[in-house]
Amino acid sequence: MTYCLGILSPEGLVLASDSRSNAGVDQVARVCKLSLLTVPGERVIAILGAGNLATTQSVVGQLHQAQGGGVVGQDVNIAPTMFDIATMVGDKLRAVIARDGSYVERYGDATASFIVGGQIRGGPHRLFEIYSAGNFVEAFPRYNFLQIGETKYGKPILDRALGSDSPLDEAAKLALLSFDATIRSNLSVGLPIDILRYRADSFSTADLATLDEDNAYWSALRDGYSDGLSALIDSLPAPPPHWGPDAAPRDYQENAVA
Amino acid sequence: MTYCLGILSPEGLVLASDSRSNAGVDQVARVCKLSLLTVPGERVIAILGAGNLATTQSVVGQLHQAQGGGVVGQDVNIAPTMFDIATMVGDKLRAVIARDGSYVERYGDATASFIVGGQIRGGPHRLFEIYSAGNFVEAFPRYNFLQIGETKYGKPILDRALGSDSPLDEAAKLALLSFDATIRSNLSVGLPIDILRYRADSFSTADLATLDEDNAYWSALRDGYSDGLSALIDSLPAPPPHWGPDAAPRDYQENAVA
Repeated sequence: MTYCLGILSPEGLVLASDSRSNAGVDQVARVCKLSLLTVPGERVIAILGAGNLATTQSVVGQLHQAQGGGVVGQDVNIAPTMFDIATMVGDKLRAVIARDGSYVERYGDATASFIVGGQIRGGPHRLFEIYSAGNFVEAFPRYNFLQIGETKYGKPILDRALGSDSPLDEAAKLALLSFDATIRSNLSVGLPIDILRYRADSFSTADLATLDEDNAYWSALRDGYSDGLSALIDSLPAPPPHWGPDAAPRDYQENAVA
Repeated sequence: MTYCLGILSPEGLVLASDSRSNAGVDQVARVCKLSLLTVPGERVIAILGAGNLATTQSVVGQLHQAQGGGVVGQDVNIAPTMFDIATMVGDKLRAVIARDGSYVERYGDATASFIVGGQIRGGPHRLFEIYSAGNFVEAFPRYNFLQIGETKYGKPILDRALGSDSPLDEAAKLALLSFDATIRSNLSVGLPIDILRYRADSFSTADLATLDEDNAYWSALRDGYSDGLSALIDSLPAPPPHWGPDAAPRDYQENAVA
């Protein structure tokens, strides 16, 4: 399983992925699910992939091979907008599934999905999720994070704490707390975390990191959250012996209905 | 969707369910997913159902109808152990799916699952999850909570905070926080919450409550948790400008691979 997360902040983008690849119980490997297609100072495109690893690598590999080749619709370096990039990723995904899907079917699932984020000079920073069908949606301030893979464990903390105006560093902190929740609840999502903190208009991927368990910030954040949460839960009152007059049980069935 | 949760504490059981039934976007209703089969002072059996509502109501309805009838394998009042009760629920589920499944197939999914908890005088309090296939597993101290339905949003807080020796009131508090996380992240899980706090050897269902948004404890817990969590997250340090020497990015692909 995989967990990938993209957050759209007014100040930029956070894109993060875990590293676990498991194709059955006896084959667990570490892979990097984050790829960059860049022209420093001019365009930054980050792609996170979930699903069939052969499919995601094929899509990204073809984009890499075509980069700089000058073919319209193939070369990310000449795509006019991030919308066009998202379209290209969806088209490549459809082509790979059309080519490999029927062969893979007897062994498993060839489908995949992607989060694509970035910025092309002259346009805003944008964030997309490409579905298995090759169509896609874009994040906007009103719904400013996109997840693929094992999405549910890490969603509550984002629902609670992430705002449409959260600064980039706040978004990065919440992204890591979302990964912490996911990793604790699902063994098939694992370290290290690749995380790109992209500041709008920087056109730079310099702030890319690979965080393993011994990273000082990650472990401080994780421990601080865990200790703080335990203290918070302890501080909340236990349920009263009686739930109150408005809590009378209702509508349930007890015993023979005849 | 549905969320049902059972927790096994050394002091007893917590069994809780939400009330949302949605069969498509235009038909959302409130239902009670908790049923009791009791002989006061002698046996308490609580059943929580998730999945196809016709299936769960058929299973529970048949158990209610057969209660007190004296037929071995049908009458919960004469089942010797909670294991036998779990077997009966699984058998009824198989019978209902065998009867209705092929008719329902063209419209949707007839499957269902259950959490069954309780105690029969002379035996311990026990907790089971009955799968759609009719087989089942039992909770033990090492893995002491069982969930059915929309399980993932509410799992991280239990993974973090619930211990095998958590007292009954602590378990009830954590159960409600787990529901809070689920309800916040999934619109198809909704109030009120039916919650039974069963104290071992009481053979009583007196501590059953239906909690709606205006219940004083529920809203105090929910607000206290929300405010405390916001304060906790704010108190944690933001990621540093540089992630540290051990966080150098590695293994990712950037630009043309040729």
